[in-house]
Amino acid sequence: MQVKDIYVSAPGKAILHGEHAVVHGKVALAVSLNLRTYLRLKATNTGKVCVNLPNIDTFLWWDLSELKQLIRHSSGKRDEVQLLDAELVRRLREFLGVTNETLDHCNMASLSFLYIYLLLFGQRELPSLTVSVWSELPTGAGLGSSAAYSVCLAASLLCASGAIPAPLNEWDHTARWCQEDLELINSWAFQGEMIIHGNPSGVDNAVGTWGGMLRFLAGKIIPLSRVPLLRILLTNTKEPRSTKVLVARVKDKINKFPSIMNPVLDSVDAISCTCERVLSEMTCEPITGEHYNILEELIDINQHHLNVMGVGHPALDVLCRLTLARGLHSKLTGAGGGGCGITLLRPETDSSIVQSTIQDLRDHGFDCWETSIGGPGVQQHTPISVKEEILEILNHY
Amino acid sequence: MQVKDIYVSAPGKAILHGEHAVVHGKVALAVSLNLRTYLRLKATNTGKVCVNLPNIDTFLWWDLSELKQLIRHSSGKRDEVQLLDAELVRRLREFLGVTNETLDHCNMASLSFLYIYLLLFGQRELPSLTVSVWSELPTGAGLGSSAAYSVCLAASLLCASGAIPAPLNEWDHTARWCQEDLELINSWAFQGEMIIHGNPSGVDNAVGTWGGMLRFLAGKIIPLSRVPLLRILLTNTKEPRSTKVLVARVKDKINKFPSIMNPVLDSVDAISCTCERVLSEMTCEPITGEHYNILEELIDINQHHLNVMGVGHPALDVLCRLTLARGLHSKLTGAGGGGCGITLLRPETDSSIVQSTIQDLRDHGFDCWETSIGGPGVQQHTPISVKEEILEILNHY
Repeated sequence: MQVKDIYVSAPGKAILHGEHAVVHGKVALAVSLNLRTYLRLKATNTGKVCVNLPNIDTFLWWDLSELKQLIRHSSGKRDEVQLLDAELVRRLREFLGVTNETLDHCNMASLSFLYIYLLLFGQRELPSLTVSVWSELPTGAGLGSSAAYSVCLAASLLCASGAIPAPLNEWDHTARWCQEDLELINSWAFQGEMIIHGNPSGVDNAVGTWGGMLRFLAGKIIPLSRVPLLRILLTNTKEPRSTKVLVARVKDKINKFPSIMNPVLDSVDAISCTCERVLSEMTCEPITGEHYNILEELIDINQHHLNVMGVGHPALDVLCRLTLARGLHSKLTGAGGGGCGITLLRPETDSSIVQSTIQDLRDHGFDCWETSIGGPGVQQHTPISVKEEILEILNHY
Repeated sequence: MQVKDIYVSAPGKAILHGEHAVVHGKVALAVSLNLRTYLRLKATNTGKVCVNLPNIDTFLWWDLSELKQLIRHSSGKRDEVQLLDAELVRRLREFLGVTNETLDHCNMASLSFLYIYLLLFGQRELPSLTVSVWSELPTGAGLGSSAAYSVCLAASLLCASGAIPAPLNEWDHTARWCQEDLELINSWAFQGEMIIHGNPSGVDNAVGTWGGMLRFLAGKIIPLSRVPLLRILLTNTKEPRSTKVLVARVKDKINKFPSIMNPVLDSVDAISCTCERVLSEMTCEPITGEHYNILEELIDINQHHLNVMGVGHPALDVLCRLTLARGLHSKLTGAGGGGCGITLLRPETDSSIVQSTIQDLRDHGFDCWETSIGGPGVQQHTPISVKEEILEILNHY
């Protein structure tokens, strides 16, 4: 069968407020991060399926004939897309020669691609195609890069299989899917995430799919109807850290000092709720400096609270200090202990200040990008709506 | 009448935990700071009363004949020492030519001295004497220097008047008064504080009198029975600040973000209670590294909370950073917004580390002293138990 070419993209994710507190039953706010992952799906007649992931120097192909061997015609229709087809995963791991020891980025990307591809096309003729992916997101930095990949895979392969339509009209540059289609994309992306992460929260793929901001509380994910787009700097301190170790550290501290730490979690909860209220006000009344004053104060307070939880890091202190010296407010985002931080920019923040701040941060060995949070989730692109340098990479294969 | 010579000293005060929170009904822990104020009272036959305060270049004397004019023989005995004799204060201000505009350190020191002197000796013959005071405490830094002065005045003049005995035995170098005498000293010192501060909390003079540690909650002051002596560095950033402005700033922040700030105050309250428990454990079980680990954690957490309240300062951040670079933990003490900070030292902290830390802090323009907290309150000294350089100053007059 012949499929249609498609360009899609999905955003990364940042935690605006509530990281760690969410583990202890408090609200967290997850926002889309407009460092995006772009995917081009191209029909071919090579009798092969190719996956190109130049970010991680990974270029894979399989003959359709060998992939056909992996298909078992199931007795009934799989209605419950939320449940992983464990038997298929087992067969794919065997086919790829993947063990728990060799489960690197490349193998996880192959597994999740082949899983979605085979389940969507397995009951009919397998199409010959090439998928090329380029991401602006650093990997393994807690910014939802694997979810953005899974969302792009789900959207493009669902389109290619005809399960959902391509939403782009001839007069659009970008377009988004309807709610129902987004739910299907999200549920397939979640399966990709399960293959990669084992037991994901579902937040990352939801943000990649819906964009904007999500309220996450006790495992329940609620997309917020309207949020403003906020300019930020995203800084990667490149300090390696283990989320598991950091989560355990916070838990230990709460157990050691419950009367001191539980109020801090309550305060973080109130920060998330206050932030949500202010952001919602910003979409329905004129945005003022006071809105930004409050957002900045919340960032500062939460950063102190995260330090109290023991998930700060000298590199994050440097980030906060350097940006504050230019009047900008920063906090860590995600697990902390190094990793990434976000710095709020105001609409009127001068580009010279932004550029010199970025330079300061790079001089300290950090990676730093000017981007935004609260932007759109997964979308289809015309080629000309893809940044030129990214289009060049995607079209190279 | 001829009085006996006496040397006394009283400690300064630091807030270990609970500054600002105490204004909002939470516990604060005030501790004696072993930077002391020394006073020598010497009988003379000059027919004069002399007060020498070389710290503030103040050298005053009055003829006994002019002081006698200020005495009005009261109709009854003043039992209630807690109430200020407003009429005497009015007469003293007139005598000294003090207005609210000219109420400087020198005038306040004169007022409180003459007030206590005249009330204690006014009903009989005024003695000819010289009082010389030298303080290790910086003035106006929130370290209770005025209270240490008032406590020394009260103790020495009460002794001179015969209202309390001199506690020193011939085989002692220093000695303290019994509980009842301390209560009398404290109540007279409180009157001195009322003259200087208008509406003092009573914490500073209580710490100066009893030493050790006091629990302060909702206006009630409870001296704690036993606390360990802790080595510290006391750093004065010399950044000027207004306690009134800082207290108002915290109040505004609580009003602006009650759901975020009230839990922070609860957490500070729990820090004070946890600290009190740990210090009490340290006096009745072998002191371990874990005791110090907890004290350090509490200091770090509270410093973050004080930053959340908005009473931090870049100079205090420098203090925390510099000391942490040598493994030492610091927090602001008192009003914040500059002012002073304390750094906990462990018993085993090497003197070379202490010296290089002090040097670092002085290089940043801060004043820094190695001292201790939790030491004794007001005490009488033999001359040889007074540090030589201080004895030299006191005996110069």
